[in-house]
Amino acid sequence: MQSGQDNKTHISFVELSALLASIFERHGTSPEVAAILANNCASAQRDGSDSHGTFRIPGYVSTLASGWVDGKAVPEVKDSAPGFIAVDAKNGFAQPALAAAHALLLEKARTNGIALLAIHNSHHFAALWPDVEPFARDGLVALSFVNSMACVVPHGGKQALFGTNPIAFAAPREGHDPLVFDLATSAIANGDVQIAAREGRQLPEGYGVDRNGQPTCDAKAILDGGALLPFGGYKGSALSMMVELLAAALTGGNFSFDFDWSGYPGAQTPWTGQLLIVIDPSKGAGNNFAQRCEILVRQMQAAGQPRQPGDRRYRQRAQSERDGIAIAAEELARLRALAGQP
Amino acid sequence: MQSGQDNKTHISFVELSALLASIFERHGTSPEVAAILANNCASAQRDGSDSHGTFRIPGYVSTLASGWVDGKAVPEVKDSAPGFIAVDAKNGFAQPALAAAHALLLEKARTNGIALLAIHNSHHFAALWPDVEPFARDGLVALSFVNSMACVVPHGGKQALFGTNPIAFAAPREGHDPLVFDLATSAIANGDVQIAAREGRQLPEGYGVDRNGQPTCDAKAILDGGALLPFGGYKGSALSMMVELLAAALTGGNFSFDFDWSGYPGAQTPWTGQLLIVIDPSKGAGNNFAQRCEILVRQMQAAGQPRQPGDRRYRQRAQSERDGIAIAAEELARLRALAGQP
Repeated sequence: MQSGQDNKTHISFVELSALLASIFERHGTSPEVAAILANNCASAQRDGSDSHGTFRIPGYVSTLASGWVDGKAVPEVKDSAPGFIAVDAKNGFAQPALAAAHALLLEKARTNGIALLAIHNSHHFAALWPDVEPFARDGLVALSFVNSMACVVPHGGKQALFGTNPIAFAAPREGHDPLVFDLATSAIANGDVQIAAREGRQLPEGYGVDRNGQPTCDAKAILDGGALLPFGGYKGSALSMMVELLAAALTGGNFSFDFDWSGYPGAQTPWTGQLLIVIDPSKGAGNNFAQRCEILVRQMQAAGQPRQPGDRRYRQRAQSERDGIAIAAEELARLRALAGQP
Repeated sequence: MQSGQDNKTHISFVELSALLASIFERHGTSPEVAAILANNCASAQRDGSDSHGTFRIPGYVSTLASGWVDGKAVPEVKDSAPGFIAVDAKNGFAQPALAAAHALLLEKARTNGIALLAIHNSHHFAALWPDVEPFARDGLVALSFVNSMACVVPHGGKQALFGTNPIAFAAPREGHDPLVFDLATSAIANGDVQIAAREGRQLPEGYGVDRNGQPTCDAKAILDGGALLPFGGYKGSALSMMVELLAAALTGGNFSFDFDWSGYPGAQTPWTGQLLIVIDPSKGAGNNFAQRCEILVRQMQAAGQPRQPGDRRYRQRAQSERDGIAIAAEELARLRALAGQP
């Protein structure tokens, strides 16, 4: 269905997902990996993510072409302890590694009350919220941490060391979609700096440094050998450090500064690790966690907070489910070309 | 030993801890609770914490006198699942509840790879780092969350709802003291606002709101019916919300806005909950976690970060161990009077 304004087209989730799977498979993934990545990416597009939807497809294709990532990797799941699963993603993507351990992780969380999934040797090039939301839909609480590639200067430092290192959290909410947040521990996303540079806009203070490690509001100076700053000063920096330790050191994965992709021109996916912690709140003293969560949200609304984490995504998701997923006609044509479709 | 400058006296850890234990016991705690709280408070004083050392003693005494907290409570430990311990602190302090479950938590973390301690019906009036540091000294990774009392406005809101809601993290570091941080998710501590108000200083933007929920840099306006803001805008606010959910909803404890102490004049200790997550990194693929942690710290130093989380505490601790714990002579006299000592 072609809509007049903005040259936007609408496509169903199933159709977009199938199209993206064709692209992945045509560019070197196994059918299994293609299906998982396509579902992940189509979900982001459905939910209105400009940065993690189909916008990412050229990056996936370019990385696969470079040989940097193994699109056919079969993750190896190791049941390390009653509450601990370690997965070697075998230089493949993180999402198939999570999928391979998902059922075991659920079972362990329910049996033990808490369980951990440590993924290493993995590439994460997507949003983090799709990894945690499903656990909250099953009544569990999930936390995830993933490190990426050196582009954030530790607080008070001069050189990039940390990745944008997001933290995602999901909790069930009685009678509503889960409460989910997914926040980078950097002050701003790299993509937003690029947009500001293109538009010649100054950034607010505290977002980045230039190539000499000096604070700057000039987006071009940040991109030209500079780096981002953590959000919230030394506190965000401490949290970013924690993400490096949990997602890389604890899993056996690379730190954000560990890997060298200079021999793989076109590579864009960080080769690091990911940690998930899943908790069964029914083991707690209250045993009414989703109700308490809902009470907190109502109090946040009563305190005047205009929007809860995840609200915008769910609104866009509902609209996409009603009208189809909005996508620029040119973008859809480019995707079809990448899939080899006429 | 009396030092000339600043009218400071020095006291040994053992002596200070015994003095504080006398105060606690004289004002209504059991000997067991007195020993735990005294050790905690003396540790903070030893490590140079102005806000969580002996400065807190009058608040403890006043709260005990009000009948708000049970200083003789015996925590009830429930082994809920292989990785999940629930403790009812029985309206006592959180530290004795943690102490009661400590050995079981260690054992469960080592056996299962990860374990959780959910404390509810508890009062936490201390720093959070003393709760996590010991686990890192045992080679484990620990995370803790505690909520407090409504004094922080959710991002975009107008009324206080969240507590200062700190997050603490500890990880072992090969050949060094553990890497430990303890950060409030509020932009500033309440005590620092009081000091600014007393000195007539303006605060930076983004720290608080006045009684109408409007942003203000006036410390007096924040204290006069206003509230604090979360650190780092919507991201800090999301983390503060997460602390409410983990420390209160998941444990069965009160939210920061749940309790009403108006019938207990003098009460100062928030009656909430606390969550600890302890991970055994030896179950991970790397099995060299403390080494990796040390590598990260060296890279942070090489990137120009002047100080690592915890550095200042350890420096002060070493000095206190060498010279005794510094304390103002008047403060020591007040403590002795509270202990009923001549």
